[in-house]
Parts: sequence; structure tokens; C-alpha cells
Amino acid sequence: MYHAVNRIAVLGSTGSIGRQTLQVVRSLRDRFQVVGLAAGRNVRLLAEQVAEFQPEYVYYQRPRAKMSPDIPGQFVSMEEMASFLTVDMVVIATSGKAGLFATLAGVKTGKNVAIANKEPLVMAGEIITCEAEMSDASILAIDSEHSAIWQCLSGESQPPRQIILTASGGPFRNFTQRQLKQVTPAQALRHPSWRMGKKVTIDSATLMNKGLEVIEAHWLFGMPVESIRVIIHPQSIIHSMVEFYDGSVKAQMAYPDMRLPIQYALTYPERLPNPELPRIDWDKIKEFTFGPPDYKAFPCLKLAIDAAKTGGTAPTVLCAADDVAVDLFLKEKIRFTDIPRLVAETLEAHVPLSQPALEDILGTDEWARDFAANRARNWR
Amino acid sequence: MYHAVNRIAVLGSTGSIGRQTLQVVRSLRDRFQVVGLAAGRNVRLLAEQVAEFQPEYVYYQRPRAKMSPDIPGQFVSMEEMASFLTVDMVVIATSGKAGLFATLAGVKTGKNVAIANKEPLVMAGEIITCEAEMSDASILAIDSEHSAIWQCLSGESQPPRQIILTASGGPFRNFTQRQLKQVTPAQALRHPSWRMGKKVTIDSATLMNKGLEVIEAHWLFGMPVESIRVIIHPQSIIHSMVEFYDGSVKAQMAYPDMRLPIQYALTYPERLPNPELPRIDWDKIKEFTFGPPDYKAFPCLKLAIDAAKTGGTAPTVLCAADDVAVDLFLKEKIRFTDIPRLVAETLEAHVPLSQPALEDILGTDEWARDFAANRARNWR
Repeated sequence: MYHAVNRIAVLGSTGSIGRQTLQVVRSLRDRFQVVGLAAGRNVRLLAEQVAEFQPEYVYYQRPRAKMSPDIPGQFVSMEEMASFLTVDMVVIATSGKAGLFATLAGVKTGKNVAIANKEPLVMAGEIITCEAEMSDASILAIDSEHSAIWQCLSGESQPPRQIILTASGGPFRNFTQRQLKQVTPAQALRHPSWRMGKKVTIDSATLMNKGLEVIEAHWLFGMPVESIRVIIHPQSIIHSMVEFYDGSVKAQMAYPDMRLPIQYALTYPERLPNPELPRIDWDKIKEFTFGPPDYKAFPCLKLAIDAAKTGGTAPTVLCAADDVAVDLFLKEKIRFTDIPRLVAETLEAHVPLSQPALEDILGTDEWARDFAANRARNWR
Repeated sequence: MYHAVNRIAVLGSTGSIGRQTLQVVRSLRDRFQVVGLAAGRNVRLLAEQVAEFQPEYVYYQRPRAKMSPDIPGQFVSMEEMASFLTVDMVVIATSGKAGLFATLAGVKTGKNVAIANKEPLVMAGEIITCEAEMSDASILAIDSEHSAIWQCLSGESQPPRQIILTASGGPFRNFTQRQLKQVTPAQALRHPSWRMGKKVTIDSATLMNKGLEVIEAHWLFGMPVESIRVIIHPQSIIHSMVEFYDGSVKAQMAYPDMRLPIQYALTYPERLPNPELPRIDWDKIKEFTFGPPDYKAFPCLKLAIDAAKTGGTAPTVLCAADDVAVDLFLKEKIRFTDIPRLVAETLEAHVPLSQPALEDILGTDEWARDFAANRARNWR
């Protein structure tokens, strides 16, 4: 059940989503009290945020367990922060697998857990959704696509027939295979519609991000992977659509601005007026275009969908290998087109385990990272 | 409140919407019992429908009060039919002002009244919505645009900021003023997206229909006329949109097929699977385009919006004069571009009465019809 939210913990508060979450909180000051802030290594920004919001609990990565004198508050782990009873809502704005334990902790203690971090659901979707059902926790989507689906499902009494995830197609939508080979990290980091963290920006360029969203949608909305379709919509105004059994389709639209899905998750079931959020200017909108994704040029999307169909530990391998591959690409050690290659080779080497326990998932993650790193080394 | 619907009366059963309503009923046979059928002069088709559905009550226009031997059942007026306690839902699929009294009767007796006929709400929106509120009746939209808005508002706890009505633009979207002068009834009766009755097809070509929809939306959703926007969307896939106070916009889409909004109104809050209803084929959808309406070339839209802003008896004059003008155009007595001219001249000659009683509305309707007919005669 949803309850009135005011005491909020933001995990990953210095990242893109974390900062925008605090912007939303700032514009709706009387509705929220920030009781926890957790960051990675950007201790300077965290110190500023702590000075402004004065949370009870803090977390940051401490080299050599050194505490920062600029950050008052009780130092706790993200997992602890997510499980305290004085926290109503946890925003998981971490990246990679960093949010996994905190997501589980929030869900197990029956909280509203707003998730922007895809990997926890991709790696451990079955465990997280089962725990949420048992504890009556709510998992709230912050991704613009999943927020769109959630908004379209609002008030509907029956499950949908199909989910239609839209994708901008990324900066290399019309590139040839040859052009894709030459893509540099600097090029890949310029996304046409969204400004995001590095990992998710590269994932958007390879369409791996869309693949992870398919898996996330599968868990969030209980839809078979076969009933989730991806279409390219370069204008990025329609954030996703839902088709019902009577043939009716509902779509949610907005200019790309993460503060909208963040606010929706934070204030659901209310929609609060927020003059900072942009309105679509229909005098300027001339056309929306649509087309199929190019699965050949962007194999990551197909790899993700196949991993989702395989299930079990396959999506964990996908995530781990992709994490390694993106890191190597950003360090200019492998080419852009090597990202899907490395993920594919790691998936091929893996024998998936069905209905894995958390330890299986963590073990698989470790195995896949080692395998991918070694494999890429052996290429050279 | 909505209650399980099964006993249904279809007024205007031999028209386009009436026939499609019976198609929907036919495909969902176990949910509905047709207890009343009312038609105009197409007694032959009504006889077939009566033989198939065996309603308790019937109505048709009888020249010289002659009963048809082919139509068994109790002969009652549409008003009586709409007020019987054995009727759960009344579908108002009549055209022009024919459905006014039946709509009022259905609403006063607290029924689910599904309205496809625009004129009753345009002429007497205030009276009808007040009566519905007092009797706890539900007015359910069957128009594709209003159904779209209704579907988008489902599950939302707050009123919208703006309603965005889409319009195909009609068959003469890109015509010059000179071309519009030459338009023949045969040309105007070919609508690009929808197959409908003659009056509504001509109203679609002049954009008067969209103007009437603005007024209808104003009453159905309690929105100020100023917060209802019209945009041209020639593909007619998005049937309308709603903007909320957080900047989010929801749209409802489908191929143009009136059976969808009819079924939605009949089965709300459920959506029933119906394999006869088409699914959007996203492989074939390449683009949606948008643009502003041309208020200069299509003055009827502006006339309707202005009449709505004036309120009182002005929309009644608009409807009545338009009815006369369309009739004269179909008889080739006036030109296509004379339709807005005649409506405008009739509106100019009228001194609007605010908060009119039903008698005022009926008196105004009569006055406007006489005035418009005389004025057109004097043009020649």
C-alpha cells in the first residue's frame, strides 16, 4: 500500500538522478524531510547536500575508512539506511549493482522503494518482486519509460496486452557497422535527448539500456518478455505506451526531464503542480516518427531480450559483462562494437542457473566480470 | 455510480453509431440484453433488429400514426424508454436535437447514459450535467475524442490542466478559400478517416464538429473552454490528449473504429477483449504529424468556441443555424463557405440568455431555425 511519504533517503544523491531528486524535494519542501543521504566518492558535493538537508544518516565511500569532518550525521551502510523504520521512502539512484542490497533491504522492510537503478531488478528481479509482495512494499519506477507505463496503467482494472517501450535510438541511430567501429567514448557520451551518468549514456548508445529496460518492465509489471515491444521514436516525447485487450493504446508524453518521473514517484498517487517542470509546446511539435530498432547494428538489445527469455542468472551475466565492457570502452581499450561482442562471448560461456538465490547471483556476477576481463585481455 | 450493465436501450439504432452499438452487443452477447430499440424512418432495418434482439420496447417515426405490423413490442416514446426502471443503460445514438428529451429522461432517472449525439450536451449542457449530479447518473462519452479523454483521466486523482482535442482536419485541410467555395456535397461527404452519418460528416468538413466537441468536453469534464485546445493530427490515431499540472501528457490511440469507444462506454470500468477490434500495427506506423487548425479557412470552429465562451443560449443558436445550413448545403441551395456565414449571421442576430431553462432553449432553437432559413432565402 502507498502511504503519505515524507521521510526520504536518497541513495546515490550526488549522481544525476540523485541531484534531480533533491531538486524536486527542494521545490516541494513542505512534503519531504530528507533523513538519509548516501554517495560514492563525491564527498565534496555530499557535504554541501548534508549542510542543506541535515539528514540523520549519511554514507559515502571512505578510502582507508577515513571519516570526513565536513559531513555530520550518523554514518551507516546504505543497506541499514534503507531498512530503518524512520525512513518512509528510499530512492535508489545508485548505478550498477551498488543499489542491490539497499533495494532488497527497503523492500523487505515494506517501504516505498523508488528505483532509478536498473541493475538490481535486472539481476535479482524475481527475489525483489517476491519480497515486495510478501512485505507489501511498493516498487516505484523512476525511469522515464517505466514511469510512463505506470502512468498509463493507472486506473486500469486489467493487465495490458502489450507494453511498447520507446527508444530514442541513441546518437548512432543511422550509423553503418563501419561507422560504429570508429565511435569514440567522447562521441558516445553525447546523448541526443538525455543528460545522464556515463555508464547509462554508453548503454543508451549501444541500446543495452533499452534491453535492460525490457527486463525491468518484465519484473515491474509482471509482463512476459514476449509482450514487450521496443520501437524507435527519435523525438523522445512519447516515453512509452501500453496496449490493452480492446485494442486501445495509452501513451505518456513530456519533454525529456527526469524531474517529472521522479516527482511522480515521490508524490504518487497525487500529481503536484510544479512550475519548474516544462510543458509541451504544441505550437513547436510538428511530428513524431517511429521505426523498428536495428537489431543487427545494435546487438546488445537482442542479447538483453534473449537473456531475459533465458532468465535465471543470464541477466546477471549480461549486466556484469556489459559493465566490464563499457568500462574498457571508456578507457579506450576496446572498440564500441566490441561491447556487444564481449557480452555475447561471456553469455555463451555461461551455463545459466534457474531461480538463483542471492548468493548464486553474486557468484555469477563475480564469475562474469572475471571472465569478461580475461577474455578482452586475450583478444589483444 | 457505475453499476453492472446488462439491460440496454439503443436510441437511434439504425444509424451508424446505433448499428455499431448492436455489433458490440452481438460480440458480447452474455453481457447485454437489448430491452429497447428506437429508430427514425428506417423501419425496415429496425424490423430486422427487433427480430434479432427482441426488445420489450420499440419506437419509430410513424407517418400518420401508422403502426408497422413487422415490429412487435410495446410502442413507447424515446423519452419513456429512457426513463423505465427496467433499463440500466441508454445509448443516445440519435442525431441533431432528437436525443435531447431522452438524454434528460435517462439522466433524471439516474441511469448510465452513453452519449454519441453531441447536440443535447451542446444545447443543454448545464441542465443535463446538473440533473446528472442530483440523480447520481453517469454520462458516458461515446465520441472517440471524449472517450480518449475519459480513458486518459482514468485513475487520476486531480483535474487536468488542459484538454487537447485532436482533429483530422477533414477532407479539405489544405484547401484555399477559393477551392472551399467550390466544394460539392459529394466531396464533403467523403471523410478521410471516419464513415459517419451525413450531418456529422459535413460538420467534420467545416470543423463545426470539432467546435461542438469543444463544448461537449467543457460539460463532460467540467473544463473551462479556455483550457481546451484543438490541434490537427491528420493520421487520426491519437484521439485526444490530456495535460496534467506536472507537465505530463497522456494520449489515447487506436485505429479509427467507433466500436472501441462504444465498447469502452458499455463495459466500463472493464475493458473486454474483443478480437474484432483492430490492433495498431506499429510496423506500419511511420509518423504522426501535428499542426494548428486554420481558423480563417474554417470559421465554424471559432464560432463554436466563441459561442461556448458566451454560453447561455448561444450554443443552441449555433447548433440550430448549423443544422439548417448543412441541410441547405446538402440540397445544394447554399455553398460550403456559406455554412459558417449563415451560422455567424444567426449568432449575430441573437441576444443570448444566460442560464436558460429548457423552454428557453427550445424557443431559441425554433427562433434560430426560422431566422437562418429566412436569411438564406433572402441571400438569393
